[in-house]
Amino acid sequence: MENGSSTARWCFRGNEAMTTESVSTIRGVLTEIYRNINEADPRPIIPLGHGDPSAFPCFRTTPIAEDAVADAVRSAKFNGYASTVGILPARRAISEYLSKDLPYKLSPDDIYLTLGCNQAIEVVLAVLARPNANILLPRPGFPTYEARAAFNRLEVRHFDLLPEKGWEVDLDTVEALADKNTVAMVIINPGNPCGNIFTYEHLKKVAETVRKLGILVIADEVYHHLAFGSNPFVPMGVFASIAPVITVGSISKRWVVPGWRLGWLVTNDPNGILQEYGIVDCIKAYLNISPDPATFIQGAVPQILEKTKDDFFSKIVDILRQDADIFYSRIKEIPCITCPSKPEGCMFVMVKLNQTLLEDIKDDFDFCVKLAKEESVIVLPGVTVGLKNWLRITFAAEPSSLEDGLARVKAFCQRHVKKQ
Amino acid sequence: MENGSSTARWCFRGNEAMTTESVSTIRGVLTEIYRNINEADPRPIIPLGHGDPSAFPCFRTTPIAEDAVADAVRSAKFNGYASTVGILPARRAISEYLSKDLPYKLSPDDIYLTLGCNQAIEVVLAVLARPNANILLPRPGFPTYEARAAFNRLEVRHFDLLPEKGWEVDLDTVEALADKNTVAMVIINPGNPCGNIFTYEHLKKVAETVRKLGILVIADEVYHHLAFGSNPFVPMGVFASIAPVITVGSISKRWVVPGWRLGWLVTNDPNGILQEYGIVDCIKAYLNISPDPATFIQGAVPQILEKTKDDFFSKIVDILRQDADIFYSRIKEIPCITCPSKPEGCMFVMVKLNQTLLEDIKDDFDFCVKLAKEESVIVLPGVTVGLKNWLRITFAAEPSSLEDGLARVKAFCQRHVKKQ
Repeated sequence: MENGSSTARWCFRGNEAMTTESVSTIRGVLTEIYRNINEADPRPIIPLGHGDPSAFPCFRTTPIAEDAVADAVRSAKFNGYASTVGILPARRAISEYLSKDLPYKLSPDDIYLTLGCNQAIEVVLAVLARPNANILLPRPGFPTYEARAAFNRLEVRHFDLLPEKGWEVDLDTVEALADKNTVAMVIINPGNPCGNIFTYEHLKKVAETVRKLGILVIADEVYHHLAFGSNPFVPMGVFASIAPVITVGSISKRWVVPGWRLGWLVTNDPNGILQEYGIVDCIKAYLNISPDPATFIQGAVPQILEKTKDDFFSKIVDILRQDADIFYSRIKEIPCITCPSKPEGCMFVMVKLNQTLLEDIKDDFDFCVKLAKEESVIVLPGVTVGLKNWLRITFAAEPSSLEDGLARVKAFCQRHVKKQ
Repeated sequence: MENGSSTARWCFRGNEAMTTESVSTIRGVLTEIYRNINEADPRPIIPLGHGDPSAFPCFRTTPIAEDAVADAVRSAKFNGYASTVGILPARRAISEYLSKDLPYKLSPDDIYLTLGCNQAIEVVLAVLARPNANILLPRPGFPTYEARAAFNRLEVRHFDLLPEKGWEVDLDTVEALADKNTVAMVIINPGNPCGNIFTYEHLKKVAETVRKLGILVIADEVYHHLAFGSNPFVPMGVFASIAPVITVGSISKRWVVPGWRLGWLVTNDPNGILQEYGIVDCIKAYLNISPDPATFIQGAVPQILEKTKDDFFSKIVDILRQDADIFYSRIKEIPCITCPSKPEGCMFVMVKLNQTLLEDIKDDFDFCVKLAKEESVIVLPGVTVGLKNWLRITFAAEPSSLEDGLARVKAFCQRHVKKQ
């Protein structure tokens, strides 16, 4: 047969906007960092770059969740298509699970099943997009929001999280940034990437600001209940009577099964505003043409949520607390890195890199590339989450691996520190 | 707390384009038809509306597939995130599985895992969209293409499938419709909704036409190998040296597990044209910000593809053949319905409704609504797939249910036929 390339002219082209808009996702950056690993290094790679500690034996999920999925698949009741919003028993179980932390009761109709929290983010940004609209995102934040906003041509405006105030939202900036085209603001609590937990009082202030601006809150609670410091986890939905809240979450983090792709989008909206303003219809329309979570995973949800024992949750939180202690004490021993506050939740912490103290490290990205190459430790450059010359480090690891990883970071910094 | 609705003005609105563009999906229409079911009817509902016979005991998937998933979830090896294109063992298994039917060998890098065939369609249309571009879609067809094209602002032009020629593509129309902004044409083989199988010769002509036009073929082979007539199933990828082919498919139909959401997008491109024209980079970029199939389902793929026995496949095809025979003999007995040709593949057939012979039936939609109400039988109005006053009927059902369903359709027509 002939060679098509030489004799035909082809009319199709890849959509260029697509390749330029999505370059800075965490997956993309981590893939780039991983490429620098020296395969000759006999030591294990220590992955402190992403929120997925599932490979560590101490973070293995509960057998109750595994059994629930295996039972569902063997039942042959969940081989067919699900409804576009998710099957009712799963939505009912999630509404009951989340209502435990709220002053009102969610209905199954407030719950939409999604492919992890990620697809819930995709849905909510697509639904809110319209010409000239803008959205307020935290800096530092989670770059999937920026990527999906760009994809939907939704303008992004960043407000700051303040390290000197335990990473609280700079609410003055929020008010200054918003205008009549602002549609929503995003908060992530427990905090990715900062490892903080917002107080009840602060969340109430967020709700009041949002109400004043006439926008809605997108509350990213994918790390819900992973809190081990002095502040308890309070869902944003508690304040939904002040302003409507769309909560996004999943079983990914609390059950340590991010690969199972089971998440939710929740309309916390006791006053029916999201319905009134057409948001609910749009969510349904978008899900109607979007992929769904595997039906048998949906089928397993009631058993997973109702039967998982508190001792599993406590075990995971205890390991994270121990990890945070290890992290905070070890990081203090590294002179070119400053940690503004001890993490109290989530799986991450932001630390400031003082690269001027280092001889041959240009910036945070360069630091991460060389660290991967020389020490087989993966951490994420802060620039990826909006803060140049900071680092986002995952402390969620087997404690001994975390110790090992931080010792390698220390050795790396000592080796690169400028000679006096 | 105050009532937000009465005292605040909200800036957000649902994206209206979204609710108008996606109304005519099959799921949406079937939901509407189902609403007419009379709950007082003691007879079972006979679902002949969609391509999901998984609820019928005779279509239960093989235990090998169920075991593969249960083993993968219990192994705890697949709880974490997968790579954006899918895990290598799954891509390798799919490349080997599909290569058996091709004159060249696919590489794992030609395979991208998706959430069923549906997400593969989403990816390919998003990748090809650019200002003023148009795509050629079959009529009758599968409305997910129209919905995703609208979402991506890709203009749709329809070519006809010809009932008098066994539903072959009207290639003259294809040439007349295409212009310099045409990027691709879609063919669905085995044919949804027509139940036909394209011959080797016809597919070769499609490839030659496409090459002449400088476009690519999107070959929807989600029903691959469900062929039981005189024409064997030939994958379009056989002709990929003539023009590049993007094949979309899944395990949904051949294994009767549409709810498992495991599909693929395949670049059949021995001349590297899709790479050269930026399509491959775009596919990767889009998947980078898209949801993935559950990792443990990906983990189960090698076992599912390699261990499923031929007798399972033969059993499914034998039931479909028996169903097609039942369908074709029973439908002949119904005077107001004409079936242009006996189905030879897939799970559907298009039949022409002669509503002028019926007393109080306005059109195909009205027929389906009243049939649901009076007989608890669900079929899809042809208008949904592009042919007004036709019906798309699924014959993939437990044979006894199919007999029952068609007897009810007959009784319905006899009851509504105009008195002479």
